[in-house]
Amino acid sequence: MTALPHGESPEARVTRVLSEQPFSMLLGARAGRIARGHAELIVENRPDLTQNNGFMHGGVIGYLADNAAGCAASTMLPEGAAGLVTAEYKLNLLRPATGARAVARGEVVKAGRRQCVAETRVWCVTGGEEKLVAIALATLAYIYPED
Amino acid sequence: MTALPHGESPEARVTRVLSEQPFSMLLGARAGRIARGHAELIVENRPDLTQNNGFMHGGVIGYLADNAAGCAASTMLPEGAAGLVTAEYKLNLLRPATGARAVARGEVVKAGRRQCVAETRVWCVTGGEEKLVAIALATLAYIYPED
Amino acid sequence: MTALPHGESPEARVTRVLSEQPFSMLLGARAGRIARGHAELIVENRPDLTQNNGFMHGGVIGYLADNAAGCAASTMLPEGAAGLVTAEYKLNLLRPATGARAVARGEVVKAGRRQCVAETRVWCVTGGEEKLVAIALATLAYIYPED
Amino acid sequence: MTALPHGESPEARVTRVLSEQPFSMLLGARAGRIARGHAELIVENRPDLTQNNGFMHGGVIGYLADNAAGCAASTMLPEGAAGLVTAEYKLNLLRPATGARAVARGEVVKAGRRQCVAETRVWCVTGGEEKLVAIALATLAYIYPED
Repeated sequence: MTALPHGESPEARVTRVLSEQPFSMLLGARAGRIARGHAELIVENRPDLTQNNGFMHGGVIGYLADNAAGCAASTMLPEGAAGLVTAEYKLNLLRPATGARAVARGEVVKAGRRQCVAETRVWCVTGGEEKLVAIALATLAYIYPED
Repeated sequence: MTALPHGESPEARVTRVLSEQPFSMLLGARAGRIARGHAELIVENRPDLTQNNGFMHGGVIGYLADNAAGCAASTMLPEGAAGLVTAEYKLNLLRPATGARAVARGEVVKAGRRQCVAETRVWCVTGGEEKLVAIALATLAYIYPED
Repeated sequence: MTALPHGESPEARVTRVLSEQPFSMLLGARAGRIARGHAELIVENRPDLTQNNGFMHGGVIGYLADNAAGCAASTMLPEGAAGLVTAEYKLNLLRPATGARAVARGEVVKAGRRQCVAETRVWCVTGGEEKLVAIALATLAYIYPED
Repeated sequence: MTALPHGESPEARVTRVLSEQPFSMLLGARAGRIARGHAELIVENRPDLTQNNGFMHGGVIGYLADNAAGCAASTMLPEGAAGLVTAEYKLNLLRPATGARAVARGEVVKAGRRQCVAETRVWCVTGGEEKLVAIALATLAYIYPED
């Protein structure tokens, strides 16, 4: 995969950014497959990530939806951009999030110079079976030093 | 304030539900002012809740936006309903979330028998000053035993 | 394709509903390909559907996004349901809507007994070329006589 | 009210833009009260703006929600900006839109140099009574000649 403008590979960038975010470390988020326009993030289920019914808490699913979209957008960082922030996202929760882990797959819908629209689908995985538990649509804003 | 259908006060319900959610405990979320149609949730800033720029992580803001809306909706739980779940929400992040704590105030826009639409505004507080950092619109679905 | 609970084919239902909606007639909306979980709606560009830059107005794109999602949801109307209404949708406008016509393709993401989540992508078509101009995520509520 | 950067009053700008949009003319949209950060748009109910149950069509409500947000954002057009476009919006439909007219009131939540977040509430009016029928949250992008 092509290096980003600043010479870092998209995989290296996603892994580095997660490791620099204490909240991502608290949740145990890690990168899965990263490719141009795509990013997979994974959080293992743990008792302290659940809500009162024992499902993974919606806050974890929201974190994943937002951040997988942001990581996908970061793989298409335009020349000269210093980084990106989430402007907004919308999340539909489809099913209770049960199982061993949640896997979020962000995919760029359209990337421009100023903003990127990305979609994330979040799956819960138990054994070999994946169930779609959430879908999100997000807008990420690219940031420039001169802004 | 009127008791909910099952005889618990809205304040007691919100406090109980937070205490039963391990993820809410992990984030240190606590209830502020609760009234019919309104719910305030508070999370104190901590190093492990931040992202790579030192701001409170968007995942914490998303958690607060979603849950303050849900807690507001729970204060208007209809007769016969067993509980509620978030169907969807949309969040706009307006400013970096800096300061000593984040305070989310959920407000019911319209509550019916099947669903409730609520809005949350999230503020970051430092000293006596509050800054609006996010706004969200959420749909909560009331759940019935016969569903 | 299987008939809907009330014995009408999904294609017939979409065509009938459009013909019964004066606003859909005003915009000249017509059904394209309809299949279980999918619905295509088409609006031909006309001078009176534009905004001040000559593009198709965002209001037309919003109409298409919402209604293609609703038509897709109607192809999976559950047993006993009398109809459906849009509960909410979120739309990202990606590019100016130019060209001869706009084609919206709604696709069911998940259909349950109470609600359906669907995604619509709206394309503008000129000659043989299609450009993605908008993407939307919608929640449709199924309505029952006993509600 | 202060003139916008290009010397036009916000009221004059909104009225001019509506008159330059053939689709707004088709719907009969007109400006109500306009002030810094606020914009009111009105559409009179007409048989050709309805759906199959006789209510004003959701497409009209979506048009109003989007455009009242955009008009509100236009009252805070930053120095040097040439105009604005809707980046995205999210709309919750709360009740059937019945009555003599729909009145949409857009209000700026936060305006920056690059984008503006605004909220619209849409009311249906019959006699002296107003009913809230929809609420929306929108992101508008300001456009600059050098973009």
